[in-house]
This record gives sequence, C-alpha cells and structure tokens, in this order.
Amino acid sequence: MTIKVAIDAMGGDHGLSVTVPASIDALQKFSDLHITLVGKKQLIESELANHQYDTSRLTIEHAEQVVEMDDLPSKALRNKRQSSMRIALNLVKDDQAQACVSAGNTGALMAVAKFVLKTLPGIERPAICTSMPTMKGHVHVLDLGANVGCTGENLAQFAVMGSVLAKAVDDNPHPRVGLLNIGEEEIKGHQRIKDAHQIISGSKINYIGYVEGDDIYKGDTDVVACDGFDGNIALKSSEGVAKMIAFYLREAFNRNLLTKFIGLCAYPVLKSFKDKVDPRRYNGASLLGLRKIVIKSHGGADRFSFYHAIAEARLEVIKNVPDLISEEVSQLLVAPPVDDAQQAS
Amino acid sequence: MTIKVAIDAMGGDHGLSVTVPASIDALQKFSDLHITLVGKKQLIESELANHQYDTSRLTIEHAEQVVEMDDLPSKALRNKRQSSMRIALNLVKDDQAQACVSAGNTGALMAVAKFVLKTLPGIERPAICTSMPTMKGHVHVLDLGANVGCTGENLAQFAVMGSVLAKAVDDNPHPRVGLLNIGEEEIKGHQRIKDAHQIISGSKINYIGYVEGDDIYKGDTDVVACDGFDGNIALKSSEGVAKMIAFYLREAFNRNLLTKFIGLCAYPVLKSFKDKVDPRRYNGASLLGLRKIVIKSHGGADRFSFYHAIAEARLEVIKNVPDLISEEVSQLLVAPPVDDAQQAS
Repeated sequence: MTIKVAIDAMGGDHGLSVTVPASIDALQKFSDLHITLVGKKQLIESELANHQYDTSRLTIEHAEQVVEMDDLPSKALRNKRQSSMRIALNLVKDDQAQACVSAGNTGALMAVAKFVLKTLPGIERPAICTSMPTMKGHVHVLDLGANVGCTGENLAQFAVMGSVLAKAVDDNPHPRVGLLNIGEEEIKGHQRIKDAHQIISGSKINYIGYVEGDDIYKGDTDVVACDGFDGNIALKSSEGVAKMIAFYLREAFNRNLLTKFIGLCAYPVLKSFKDKVDPRRYNGASLLGLRKIVIKSHGGADRFSFYHAIAEARLEVIKNVPDLISEEVSQLLVAPPVDDAQQAS
Repeated sequence: MTIKVAIDAMGGDHGLSVTVPASIDALQKFSDLHITLVGKKQLIESELANHQYDTSRLTIEHAEQVVEMDDLPSKALRNKRQSSMRIALNLVKDDQAQACVSAGNTGALMAVAKFVLKTLPGIERPAICTSMPTMKGHVHVLDLGANVGCTGENLAQFAVMGSVLAKAVDDNPHPRVGLLNIGEEEIKGHQRIKDAHQIISGSKINYIGYVEGDDIYKGDTDVVACDGFDGNIALKSSEGVAKMIAFYLREAFNRNLLTKFIGLCAYPVLKSFKDKVDPRRYNGASLLGLRKIVIKSHGGADRFSFYHAIAEARLEVIKNVPDLISEEVSQLLVAPPVDDAQQAS
C-alpha cells in the first residue's frame, strides 16, 4: 500500500527550507511513502534542486497563497482559499492524500481543517493531542489549546480519542487514561472535570482517575485528558522550565576554560541525556476527532522535527486512527453491563 | 527590633527532625530572630537536646494535637483546635509572634489561617504565592491552588498583592505584572481573565499584559497572577518536567564506569548548575491577603528548605507586607487620573 501525505510546504517559521529536506528524509526512510508538496511551485522546485530523491514518489501541487503565522483563523478561512494549507487539506478531503502535515499556525489549521474535513460523528470538538516524554516512555496529552471552556462531555470525548490513539500507535491494548486536576480535596477541580469524571468512570476506558501536573511526566499514565486552556498551560510551562534548565546547564559548562573542557569530556553523556528528552522527537501533534488525519508540526520545527511529524502522519494512516475513533467513540462512552465491566477490569 | 516567628513544629512529612534543626540554623543566621516552636513539648525537647543554640531566643509552646497531611480543611478547623498549626496561628493573632511558618497541609493551613487571622479589608480571597527561578532571577506566581474559579476582581487583587510583595521583598520599585493566559488569539482565555485584564489595565500596577506558560521562566515578568487551578497546573507540571530531566541526567551519568567517572569530573559544574535551579532555595510560599504573615513550607521540605521558609517569614515581617498590601490594594485598583498615570509610566 502507498501512503500519500500532503505537506503544507509553506507553513512554519522556516517554510520550504525545513519542509522540503524533511520530506526528502521521510521518502528515504519510508519506501511506502508518497509526498505531495503544496506551495509556490517555483520556490519548491528550486529548493528541490538541492536534493536527490525518488521523483516517482514526490508531486508538487501549486498554491498561490500562504497562511501567515499571525493570520487569524477567520481570515485564513475566508481569504486564503488558495493557500498551501487549504489546498493540502483539500487533497485529503478528495482522497488524493490520506493525511496532511502543516507547521502553519495552529488556530488557522484547526479552523480550516474542521471546515474542510468535518468532525467525526459523535465528536463535538476536535482536539490537539501531542505526545511528551515521561520517566518511563511517553504520554499523550489532549487538548492543548484548541478548546477553551469544555463541557464534561467534551473532556470525555478527548479521553476516548486519546485512548484510541495510544492503543493504535503504541500497540497498547489498555492505555491508562487520567483526567488533569489539582490536588486540593475539598475544592477539587471545575464542574466540567467532575462531570467528565462521572462520564468516564461509567465507560469502558481504562480510567485511572484524576492526575496532577507532575503526574504527566511520571510515566504511570498513557493519556492525560484536559481542557485546552489547562493543557496549554501545562505544555507551555513545561517547555519554559525545560528551556531554563538547558540554559543554566549550558551556562555552568561555559563559565570558564576548565568547565568548557569538562563539558567537552562530558559531551557524549550530555548528548545521550539530551536525546532522551529531545522535544524534536515528539514533534507532530494530532488533530483528533476530524474525519481525516491532520498533523500539526511545531511552527519552529527544524528538519529533524518536521520529519517526525511526517512519520507520525504515516503511522496514523497505517493504523487508521480516525476510523478507530469513530468505531470506539459510540461504544466506549456507553456504561458497560456488569459482565463487561468485570471483563474490562 | 526582635522578630518573633511561630513555627508549627509538627507539620510536614518529616516534622520535628526538619523543623527543629532548620529553626536552629535560622537562629544562628539571624541574630534578630526569636522562634517559638509549637508542638508536643517532650518531643521538641528531646530533639532540641541534639543541638546547641541560644536558649534566650527559643521558646516552646505545647500543643497536644497535630494536623495530619491528609486531614480535610474542615476537620482541621473544627476538630484540631489544640493542634500545633492552630496554636502557632493563635500566637500570631495575639501578637505574641509576627509570622507563622508551617509545612502542614496547604488546604488546612489556608482554612485555619483565614479563620484565625481574617483577610485584609478589600481582599476577598487570600492567595498562595511562591517564587520560582527564571533565566534572569525569579518570579512570584499566585495563586497556586487555594482559589479555583476566581472572578476578574479576585485575579486583579492577586495582581496587586503580588506586585506589593515583589516591591517589598525584592526592592523592585516597579514590578512587571503579567496575567497567565494562552496564546490563541480568537479564543483567548476565560471570561474571568478578560475581566481581570480590563480591571488591571485601568490600575497603577506596572501591567505588561497576558503572559503564557513559558513566559514564567523567561525572566521578563516579576509577578504572574492566575487562577489557583491554572497556577497549580503550571507549578506541578514544571515540577514534574524538572524531576524528569534530573532523572534522565542522573541516568546518563550512571550508565557505566566511564560515565560515572565523567560525572565525578563534572560534579562541581553540575553542582553549580543545580544550585541555580534548586527548588529548596525557593521554599516558603506566602499566604497573601491575610492580616498577618503566614508562610507555607513544602510538606516534603528538608532542613535547608525549611530554613528558607523561616527566612522568608522574617523578611516579610521586616518589610511589613500585610500593611503594604492593605495600603496599596485600595489605591492601586483605582484608575489613576491622567497626571498620575504619566508619572507612573
């Protein structure tokens, strides 16, 4: 089977200088992959001229417009119908590609994807889901900012979608799903979280209950469901503290000649450490709940990061994630009869 | 002037084995300090027997009960009137001490402190405020979990209280205050955050607008105000990711004999790095908005951490933080006349 992925080649902070080489890398790595680069044809061609690749597995689709990183979603939707983002999504809608990857701005991508591809039946709001490293592997967290002020039902749907994704891409038959909350017993959480707790407790999901911010990284949870506001705060705070730690670590080794020399000796160790927590390996957030596969790359992604986003798109095509969500969303949220509940536990 | 601090000696995961030695350290460091250790007299005395200290500056106040780490606030309030926590707070109420330090459970401490000491006029809800390291120094963040579902007014009061604290303890005449939010333009934030934005924009606070999770650590903000739910998520996620990074860093250096040797050589560098981001140096969260000074230590605090919480209490007494909040809360939230606004900017 050939897996066809449409790439919004103009998206992201670095545009073609990242999306094109990353696409070449992905073609080299995956022999079943076909890529359509969507964007300004001439510019794509001149970037491609720097690379060797299997021309039979790469197509260019011209797009006149570009969605800018600061375009409002409404503007992208109304005034950028000829944009690389929109045309890449159209290719998916028309079954000329099975997934779309874009490093374009999140709000615009979500709005246009929702409009072009529509949400799955039973899903009110699609969610953005990323995986993050933990002490024991990784965890899928959703939503990360697409949905602010969710209802309990929305959160329960996120829990289902995350569970299906983890099951599919990690080959994990019973992903442990937690709801993000805070620890104060008597004031615990917003009403929406209590509502979601109620709904999910009555489902067949392998629900482990409330988890706190620090639990995200402990590795005892496979999926963390939360409101987009809370998920965004968790993700951005984590990014911030990780950058600060990296900053002080660099500073300590750069203090003087001796510390620089020690840093040189410690380089292989620091490198192996860095690889473990390298956020680039986790690039490629899934827009879950749409009828087709859309992967959002970090806007600032480099070649290595963007390659990972393409790899994520390919994996979700192979695993057929939207169909699995569609199948399970109706089942999973129905309270199981007693027998089933016992089987499930 | 003698600064009198009452210590809930029984509080925290480690109780007397931490609170007593930390108190001795603080007495040694600060010659103007007097400490009252509140708790089971015999146990305190037997712990004190291990230490040398200036007996004229240390008093013991017997308390029969202990607030357990999992006691509900309501239980601590009703059934633990003879607890070390309650009696330490009573000493502050009765002006026998100017501040109270406790590593007891947060919910109970807040509830009992609010009941015993009352909130300042103009403050609806006290907030928990801690400082955290940034790339350029530190930042004060509040609220961290005491208040879920705040109004815009509550958030604006937090902004004022944080601003006053930063001004007082950092000798920073114009602390930059931000409101925690997420970055998606069109769906930006909850209504309460927009309301707070409105109120604070019309105040004399040095308000820099919305900040995101990663901005907390950049060092371009001195105070971050937020709902307790959001602050708790930010703090706990940050703690979680920092612990994970430390875990992988240790793992990388412990892999084999060679990496262990390299770790040994790099130890002074790693130590200087660790000192920079050591959360123990930031231990001691302020319960702001009460009529008196109450400092909450991390429950798992060690001797060094708890010492820092005592030092924070002493500093807030010297700076007279509650009176400053009281003075400024009424003024700061009034929209300044044009002349004043120009002066302030």
